[in-house]
Amino acid sequence: MGKALIIGAGGVASVVVHKCCQNPDVFEEICIASRTVSKCEALKQGLDGGKTKIQTAQVDANNVPELVALIKKFQPDIVINVALPYQDLTIMDACLETKVDYVDTANYEPEDTAKFEYKWQWAYRERFKEAGITALLGSGFDPGVTGVFSAYAQKHYFDTISQIDILDANAGDHGYPFATNFNPEINIREVTAKGSYYDNGKFIETDPMSIKQVYNFPQIGPKDIYLLHHEEMESLALNIKGIKKIRFWMTFSQKYLTHLEVLQNVGMTSIEPINFEGKQIVPLQFLKAVLPDPASLGPRTKGKTNIGCIFQGEKDGKPVTYYVYNVCDHEECYKEVGSQAVSYTTGVPAMIGAEMVLTGKWKKPGVYNIEEFDPDPFMDALNRFGLPWHESFVPELVK
Amino acid sequence: MGKALIIGAGGVASVVVHKCCQNPDVFEEICIASRTVSKCEALKQGLDGGKTKIQTAQVDANNVPELVALIKKFQPDIVINVALPYQDLTIMDACLETKVDYVDTANYEPEDTAKFEYKWQWAYRERFKEAGITALLGSGFDPGVTGVFSAYAQKHYFDTISQIDILDANAGDHGYPFATNFNPEINIREVTAKGSYYDNGKFIETDPMSIKQVYNFPQIGPKDIYLLHHEEMESLALNIKGIKKIRFWMTFSQKYLTHLEVLQNVGMTSIEPINFEGKQIVPLQFLKAVLPDPASLGPRTKGKTNIGCIFQGEKDGKPVTYYVYNVCDHEECYKEVGSQAVSYTTGVPAMIGAEMVLTGKWKKPGVYNIEEFDPDPFMDALNRFGLPWHESFVPELVK
Repeated sequence: MGKALIIGAGGVASVVVHKCCQNPDVFEEICIASRTVSKCEALKQGLDGGKTKIQTAQVDANNVPELVALIKKFQPDIVINVALPYQDLTIMDACLETKVDYVDTANYEPEDTAKFEYKWQWAYRERFKEAGITALLGSGFDPGVTGVFSAYAQKHYFDTISQIDILDANAGDHGYPFATNFNPEINIREVTAKGSYYDNGKFIETDPMSIKQVYNFPQIGPKDIYLLHHEEMESLALNIKGIKKIRFWMTFSQKYLTHLEVLQNVGMTSIEPINFEGKQIVPLQFLKAVLPDPASLGPRTKGKTNIGCIFQGEKDGKPVTYYVYNVCDHEECYKEVGSQAVSYTTGVPAMIGAEMVLTGKWKKPGVYNIEEFDPDPFMDALNRFGLPWHESFVPELVK
Repeated sequence: MGKALIIGAGGVASVVVHKCCQNPDVFEEICIASRTVSKCEALKQGLDGGKTKIQTAQVDANNVPELVALIKKFQPDIVINVALPYQDLTIMDACLETKVDYVDTANYEPEDTAKFEYKWQWAYRERFKEAGITALLGSGFDPGVTGVFSAYAQKHYFDTISQIDILDANAGDHGYPFATNFNPEINIREVTAKGSYYDNGKFIETDPMSIKQVYNFPQIGPKDIYLLHHEEMESLALNIKGIKKIRFWMTFSQKYLTHLEVLQNVGMTSIEPINFEGKQIVPLQFLKAVLPDPASLGPRTKGKTNIGCIFQGEKDGKPVTYYVYNVCDHEECYKEVGSQAVSYTTGVPAMIGAEMVLTGKWKKPGVYNIEEFDPDPFMDALNRFGLPWHESFVPELVK
């Protein structure tokens, strides 16, 4: 069918590459490109010999001319951006210049502000339309599958959806008292940032971690879940007609929060260097050095994730509640693709999003969020590519 | 009356020096000696001009010939040892050689074992007797005042004491989420060490922090208090005739324990160096560098300590319960002597113990624990020198 250029070589990129290779009729040829070409080579070596042909390349995703040169050389039908969110705009610029379709999994954020907003990417709408190419934004799980779930609910079960609750639960256990999947500073920013939810046309700010519930998740059990801000609320508020309320919830264990709080209390998460024996050392950098290597977590993480949405609204004048979710097992993911469920649940939808555009099912000039397309072929692909979903019309989640 | 050589120049030594200067009829002349003579000079400068004459000297307390030379030069009537517990034996050796009385506040421990036992110092009994000099061991608060309390209870209120509970509560608040008075590794050793209590002729080991009660302390309120091993149980078991049970309890807040546990969990208390940017760094050393400087705690610590003993036994065939305790205010101590209550409650009894020996009230050749002497003049001095005590025959402490 076609050729995909995959930019990035981290955990999510690894899942995308594995999944493209499981889908060789669509992805006949791929090129894995990142700043560190040895990482791309390592991915290639693990998968070479299948039906999908694999190339690798070195590229700096901050550098538009380098990106343009690589696209011109490899001639992909689509670019799958699983690099850093800071690099969305340079990659979109390169796609515009070469007239190639674009997919990503997380919205652009300027490196210095950590402000999650779609405005920078939505500003490309007219240019993508004029160039006749498609940009599919946020094709991970959340954002991503949560938007597909919303479009699916709207299409099949509701006249009007009045409320969406997005529930992201991770019951993974790596066996360490404490470890982070990534930079602990980002974790801390997450739990110390103001929350927000959408209510009747505007976003209401909440104090950090001030709204907590206990949900009893299928296949996972009861978990503490906290209201946070999350990017997909911004597009769903626009695209789901008649929506009144949207909330995003994420699980954090008390143990995890206690560890973060103590480390913050004692100053170990500070990014201000201190003088230690004549050397300037950033406490957070030192903390990262004593914590378990994130790369070591994959093979030892047990347990499951459960991510889904509860919709409330009306159909034919009657109230409807609908819950749709995926449960993903960390160990099974690791066995299949060498990454645990957090990367898996993001990488699989990235591949599916690229398939949707590449096969023409979602081909439409412009810049779009995922809930703007027909959800049915995507929902079907989720079942085929390792993220089967379940549904219920009588969810009993709140403990 | 006489001359005292004070060895040490830390927080406790500072209190001893202040208190000797408040008692110039007994302490006509003192010499402050330590490895770092500038610390001794600083203490002297703060107090010079009073009735007590102050000298300073440089001495290595590990070096017997140096100690002997200093004692021969200054010609003290007594040596007050408020140096490190590792240095008790060298200072006792120097006292033996020069025939000068000796007082300390904590029993000897070999630097590498952290084993709190009196056997090393009790081995000096015959030699001190033959030399005609007195060694008074453990004249701090606990050990120290707790032994005086025991002798006082025995003398005035009991025919037989069957049980002693020693209760050490510190409700000080320095306003930091977490800080340690000293090396956090020692704190951790304390809370991870086995506890023990004396029961019918033998010591029973308990799992670390496994026995906890809540006591409602006068002037402090309810506190979590944990059973620990402590050195004075060893001498009290010998010296209080007919005693059946002795337990030592110390307060730890849940917050303090949580912080220690997290820091241990993440590896920040490890003493194994890690390679960080080409340099070998011990995590515990780095942690100490980010934590507040212990020297900064004194001026900002608020709240009180409450240390005392509950005695149970019989008098004239009737059951008696007797509680005696001191309450000490961190801020008032700091205002008076520039040290908070933890140093104050140790330093005041050291000065009083030296007074008891110097004035002949407790002069007796040999090596003795504090409960072997008449408690009355010491109890009287506590009231006069800033550690007044309170008593109750109907304590209602257990919540």
